[in-house]
Amino acid sequence: MNKTPRHAALLIIGNEILSGKTQDVNLVALSRRLQEHGIPLVETRVVRDEEATIICAVNELRSTYDIVFTSGGIGPTHDDITTTTIAKAFSVPVVRSQHAEQRMRAAYEAQNRKATDTRLRMADIPKSAKLIECTVTAAPGYQVENVCVLAGVPFVFADMLDVVLAKIPPSAKFISRTVIVFVGESEIAKLLSQVQDEFTQAEFGSYPKQKKSKFYTELVITSRDQNITDTATNRLIELLTTKDISWQEESATDN
Amino acid sequence: MNKTPRHAALLIIGNEILSGKTQDVNLVALSRRLQEHGIPLVETRVVRDEEATIICAVNELRSTYDIVFTSGGIGPTHDDITTTTIAKAFSVPVVRSQHAEQRMRAAYEAQNRKATDTRLRMADIPKSAKLIECTVTAAPGYQVENVCVLAGVPFVFADMLDVVLAKIPPSAKFISRTVIVFVGESEIAKLLSQVQDEFTQAEFGSYPKQKKSKFYTELVITSRDQNITDTATNRLIELLTTKDISWQEESATDN
Repeated sequence: MNKTPRHAALLIIGNEILSGKTQDVNLVALSRRLQEHGIPLVETRVVRDEEATIICAVNELRSTYDIVFTSGGIGPTHDDITTTTIAKAFSVPVVRSQHAEQRMRAAYEAQNRKATDTRLRMADIPKSAKLIECTVTAAPGYQVENVCVLAGVPFVFADMLDVVLAKIPPSAKFISRTVIVFVGESEIAKLLSQVQDEFTQAEFGSYPKQKKSKFYTELVITSRDQNITDTATNRLIELLTTKDISWQEESATDN
Repeated sequence: MNKTPRHAALLIIGNEILSGKTQDVNLVALSRRLQEHGIPLVETRVVRDEEATIICAVNELRSTYDIVFTSGGIGPTHDDITTTTIAKAFSVPVVRSQHAEQRMRAAYEAQNRKATDTRLRMADIPKSAKLIECTVTAAPGYQVENVCVLAGVPFVFADMLDVVLAKIPPSAKFISRTVIVFVGESEIAKLLSQVQDEFTQAEFGSYPKQKKSKFYTELVITSRDQNITDTATNRLIELLTTKDISWQEESATDN
């Protein structure tokens, strides 16, 4: 991609996420990496390993958002149907990537493992797809137009994502500051509306939280400009101080 | 509801989830409770606090699935737009619930806190909505037709969910067993296809996992019948044993 995508979506494919068997962590990983790259993640869907559902979701998301990432379903077992499904979504056949097959054969040979037919199924990709070759596994992800198909296993997902992002020019990244107040949201709702009206280029989020039995509210100030984030945050702190509401800034590393 | 819904969807509303600021935990909580209740969760969407997006998502989900849960955006701050948005999705006005207002006033009085206008905004609900009154907070959730609007804070979400489920007759719950094998998915892919073909009423999931630097594959066998789950699992174990693949069953409490 020559231009930075204006927005991104994530499609998580897998029964295990919807059955509560597995806690998804790819959403947070993707959104944080995209924030650094200046691309907002604006929608996520989680669907079961079902062809019709995946096709509908992929087609809706790819026509709505500049870039779409999918996670899961590209392994070698019967429930890994992402590749045949993505091919159908794009109306192209599935073909064996000779390049991927060679790379996989070499990797298996080096590990004294057999390049069985089952394993080599992972070299099958939709025709016209471009390989996403990562460092942690020889089986590839791939990109078809604006859809990047990545593995679901978190460390493979993250590695494939880095390969994709390395080819996309970054945009001004999102810069957030977080102020914690030890009162409920109701106490600061008006004040927050006021400062949001004053700073339309910044986004003010308000999140009620609980740690052990202690309640507090996290106020997150975000913009694409350090100066705007700082000025907006300082104004918020000024208003809090005027109202005698005690606050504390969360350092970036607390994230 | 007099009948058990055949399927459910979840709509998570909130910029904080898509920005990676907050790790969602409501999906797993909901799916596990629904599994016990015999209702499969078949789709989840995460969207930003944006009116048009929320309206589209709610309307698509409520026409597709028997029951829809939403999470987040019913607090008192400027970014809490779920209620006005749900009202628009159903083309009804927002009205003050006198019952909810009284309950909130009584709760605040008991805590020596003021029932401010800002707080009482949380008593505003779409006309025709039925209150979901939970035990941990006086501010209500509510149900409009097949859409249940719950708070995003996890312990409030869970409590409101219990209130909803208490009124729905349970169906045969999903019963899973998990077998761990210490080989990659490729090694068991064929065998798994075979046993899936033999037991069409059970679902066999295969999930590559990593703990520290140890790789293994989790095989999850699920059906709505203890006998089917057991017979299918035993057959899988028999096939693994024949192939000399070592396995170990995960006890239910390891979940």
